[in-house]
Amino acid sequence: MRELFTRELDQVGVDLVQMASHAATAIEQASTALQTADLALAEQVIDADVAIDDLERVLDERCVDLLARQSPVAGDLRLVVTALRMSASIERMGDLARHIAQVARGRYPQRAVPESLTETFDQMATAATAAARSVAELLQSRDVQRASQIESADDTLDALHRDTFRTMLTQKDQLSSQEIVDVTLLGRYYERFGDHAVSVARRVSYLVTGDPADFTTEGYSNSGSA
Amino acid sequence: MRELFTRELDQVGVDLVQMASHAATAIEQASTALQTADLALAEQVIDADVAIDDLERVLDERCVDLLARQSPVAGDLRLVVTALRMSASIERMGDLARHIAQVARGRYPQRAVPESLTETFDQMATAATAAARSVAELLQSRDVQRASQIESADDTLDALHRDTFRTMLTQKDQLSSQEIVDVTLLGRYYERFGDHAVSVARRVSYLVTGDPADFTTEGYSNSGSA
Repeated sequence: MRELFTRELDQVGVDLVQMASHAATAIEQASTALQTADLALAEQVIDADVAIDDLERVLDERCVDLLARQSPVAGDLRLVVTALRMSASIERMGDLARHIAQVARGRYPQRAVPESLTETFDQMATAATAAARSVAELLQSRDVQRASQIESADDTLDALHRDTFRTMLTQKDQLSSQEIVDVTLLGRYYERFGDHAVSVARRVSYLVTGDPADFTTEGYSNSGSA
Repeated sequence: MRELFTRELDQVGVDLVQMASHAATAIEQASTALQTADLALAEQVIDADVAIDDLERVLDERCVDLLARQSPVAGDLRLVVTALRMSASIERMGDLARHIAQVARGRYPQRAVPESLTETFDQMATAATAAARSVAELLQSRDVQRASQIESADDTLDALHRDTFRTMLTQKDQLSSQEIVDVTLLGRYYERFGDHAVSVARRVSYLVTGDPADFTTEGYSNSGSA
């Protein structure tokens, strides 16, 4: 990001990195809980989500304080406003990880994901965790190469999401209604998780490069349909 | 809201009302397209969503401009920051209406909603449209009575959403996999639409009453699980 950071703006950056790290841990653990029907781990993820919510509140207060006391303009102002938007996206990533953990908990002691889709969801878990870790690294390093890794992880998630539909629609008899409902929701949660990671990546890229081409299409909000 | 509105802050309010009106029209028309398998209307909703996105961009620029030129503090500052958050929620309501229209379009000439759930989705459409209209009216009038109507419409949506799961899990043989997928996604879209309406309602209430009890729990983000 720009060199105009004050110490407080730096702290906002630190908060965002911490939120993203929490979101990465949450999606990784929620995915493990889902794959292994681990009730304790699912509950741990659900309980830990308040920490991300708290971080968002602290960060938002810090941003509003910064606006009130320092009246930043130009790039610094845009940075603070963008931080507010990014914190909302990362908070939402935490919610989506929690939703995945809630599905895992709801089906315990069964596993929510049917055998035929285990591999697909393993790959979604890997891509989503990589995307969240890259978000944390991008926020830390401001190395925009990370942004393209996030876009690529999101493309992977979208392709895997389409795979889940293909499997559900061709394996009618092997899947129960509950399994179809769960897979539909889980696929949606992973896909939205990727969208939010891309949203953050594009905002950071725009701040770093100043090129609106990095953030014009808002394409991430167009990929949510089924 | 507070009396400290400048003319420009008033314009932000006007923009928000307009966005909410568009979102209300979008959900109403998307629901009609869904219920009647009306391809032309579905495409109209999909195309019209860019107007909401454009309004959000204009409003956000106006807010950032206001922050840069007027350096508001205290209540005015909170109002501008809150407007940014509300515009994001209303933009998302537009996206969700578009997603519903996309499901309607995807199943044309069939209807996406099975016979056994027609009534449930009719009621969801009514509640969601009422919620969006109340959001527009609340933003216009700052009459916090509207906020409780929105909470109540959201409770209705949550109850209907649970009904859809109950129906799907008890009518296994009558529903195709495609129908289960569609109903799961549509139910989620309506439910999230209600969540965003509540989010806006709570933010307005907090601005009007100054009572954080109106906006502490962020409960709207906890109702998204299945």
